[in-house]
Amino acid sequence: MSLDHVFDQALALEHAGAGTFHGQTHPAYANMVGPFGGVTAAQMLQAVWLHPERLGEPTALTVNFCAAVADGAFTINARPLRTNRSTQHWLMTLEQSGEVVISATAVTAMRRETLCVQEAVMPQVPAPQHAPLVSQKPPVSWVQQYELRYLKGELPTVWDGHDSGSSESLVWFADHPPRPLDFASLTAFADVFFPRVWLRRANRVPIGTVSMGVYFHVSATELRSISGMHVLGQAHSHVMHQGFSDQTGVLWSEDGRCLATTHQCMYYRE
Amino acid sequence: MSLDHVFDQALALEHAGAGTFHGQTHPAYANMVGPFGGVTAAQMLQAVWLHPERLGEPTALTVNFCAAVADGAFTINARPLRTNRSTQHWLMTLEQSGEVVISATAVTAMRRETLCVQEAVMPQVPAPQHAPLVSQKPPVSWVQQYELRYLKGELPTVWDGHDSGSSESLVWFADHPPRPLDFASLTAFADVFFPRVWLRRANRVPIGTVSMGVYFHVSATELRSISGMHVLGQAHSHVMHQGFSDQTGVLWSEDGRCLATTHQCMYYRE
Repeated sequence: MSLDHVFDQALALEHAGAGTFHGQTHPAYANMVGPFGGVTAAQMLQAVWLHPERLGEPTALTVNFCAAVADGAFTINARPLRTNRSTQHWLMTLEQSGEVVISATAVTAMRRETLCVQEAVMPQVPAPQHAPLVSQKPPVSWVQQYELRYLKGELPTVWDGHDSGSSESLVWFADHPPRPLDFASLTAFADVFFPRVWLRRANRVPIGTVSMGVYFHVSATELRSISGMHVLGQAHSHVMHQGFSDQTGVLWSEDGRCLATTHQCMYYRE
Repeated sequence: MSLDHVFDQALALEHAGAGTFHGQTHPAYANMVGPFGGVTAAQMLQAVWLHPERLGEPTALTVNFCAAVADGAFTINARPLRTNRSTQHWLMTLEQSGEVVISATAVTAMRRETLCVQEAVMPQVPAPQHAPLVSQKPPVSWVQQYELRYLKGELPTVWDGHDSGSSESLVWFADHPPRPLDFASLTAFADVFFPRVWLRRANRVPIGTVSMGVYFHVSATELRSISGMHVLGQAHSHVMHQGFSDQTGVLWSEDGRCLATTHQCMYYRE
């Protein structure tokens, strides 16, 4: 692994043995307060990825944001709860100052050559190079680490509380500078979507992800063979109700493969 | 709570203190091997519901099926990992013979009166009483505990490997006999959908849920006020790839409310 890319620097975890990993939040991925949750989620998965007892590759990941991650050092513990012949179940916690800040579970599995059917079809959109590049990004550090080209549902420029009528976004993502796709970067991409409640109501209310999940539909070998480093992100919300909103999303490769599906439960206050 | 209904009997857990609950699989919800996963998931949530330290109501639940649950006794441990002012994060494990069989996380929260927008619209379908009742159910016990009225994508009757072209189902569910909706029954409903790979390929291959999640978009008070005990279940799969399939679903009330969204990662072998 090259540590030239800031994302790889952020993923750097030191294994202290027994599934305990020491890491640091990375200033490049700073959010308004604390780090970008997508990188935190990727760090949780990375602890499993680096664990010497890991069987297979990630198929399902859930990350619960129990409290705000503070800038600085953290400790992740990753523990295989159960190892079967072809699947393995993981429990991960991230602690700071002796308190649980993030909890997570993951399933890793040996994939096999069998029936493959992709029923979902990527929306017909212009190729990344023909989609307009977002030039005016919000002044938070993590957003600068991504190339963003919105096709639909971009961040409002006027915060007037107008009901846009739709919470759907379609956006080409890429690491900036480019970096080959892997499970960690897909995990972070799954959280790049800005809050659906901001899009629907053009009102930048306080928000926070309480739980997010990613199902991976691709192997590491396939990821390496995918040409292009852009991912088309598609996300929408079914409902915003009494302070909590869902988000359902799909991450597509440039050639139309469904790489991952993702879901999120977000707190908002208005 | 009345224990007249078999679902309430299945949910009966004895609190032995310190978040440890003793329960039993219920023969009425037996699957071909072991219990119906939806009831297991509901039992995991029920341990949180009954926990004396619970804050608020369920908003997010993830249940990981680490190994096959054996018929008989089990012990669930439910532990609040972090309690905030208005949200609480839970870790649950179900053990049999000293081994973890199920792991789960949940978020409970105090909901507040604030912006409510339901963007998703329930498909236009006939009311439950006008939808055809499934008469020929598979000979497994748990299916007999549900009234099923398929509008689309019912269980194939001919297993000829024909590609149906769609993994989508639309089905009215109800407990049979009827029972008022609550978080536990919604959790079970989220797993009533038969495997999407069976629908897409009319081939009853071996399957197993590895992870499922439910986001609840309704409060207990609202659930009590909902008229009708049927839930319209809508589910489809984006992709079936190398032994794992996703399932994304929505549970609707009879009057078109989005009660819950659900997602699932399922293993299959062909």
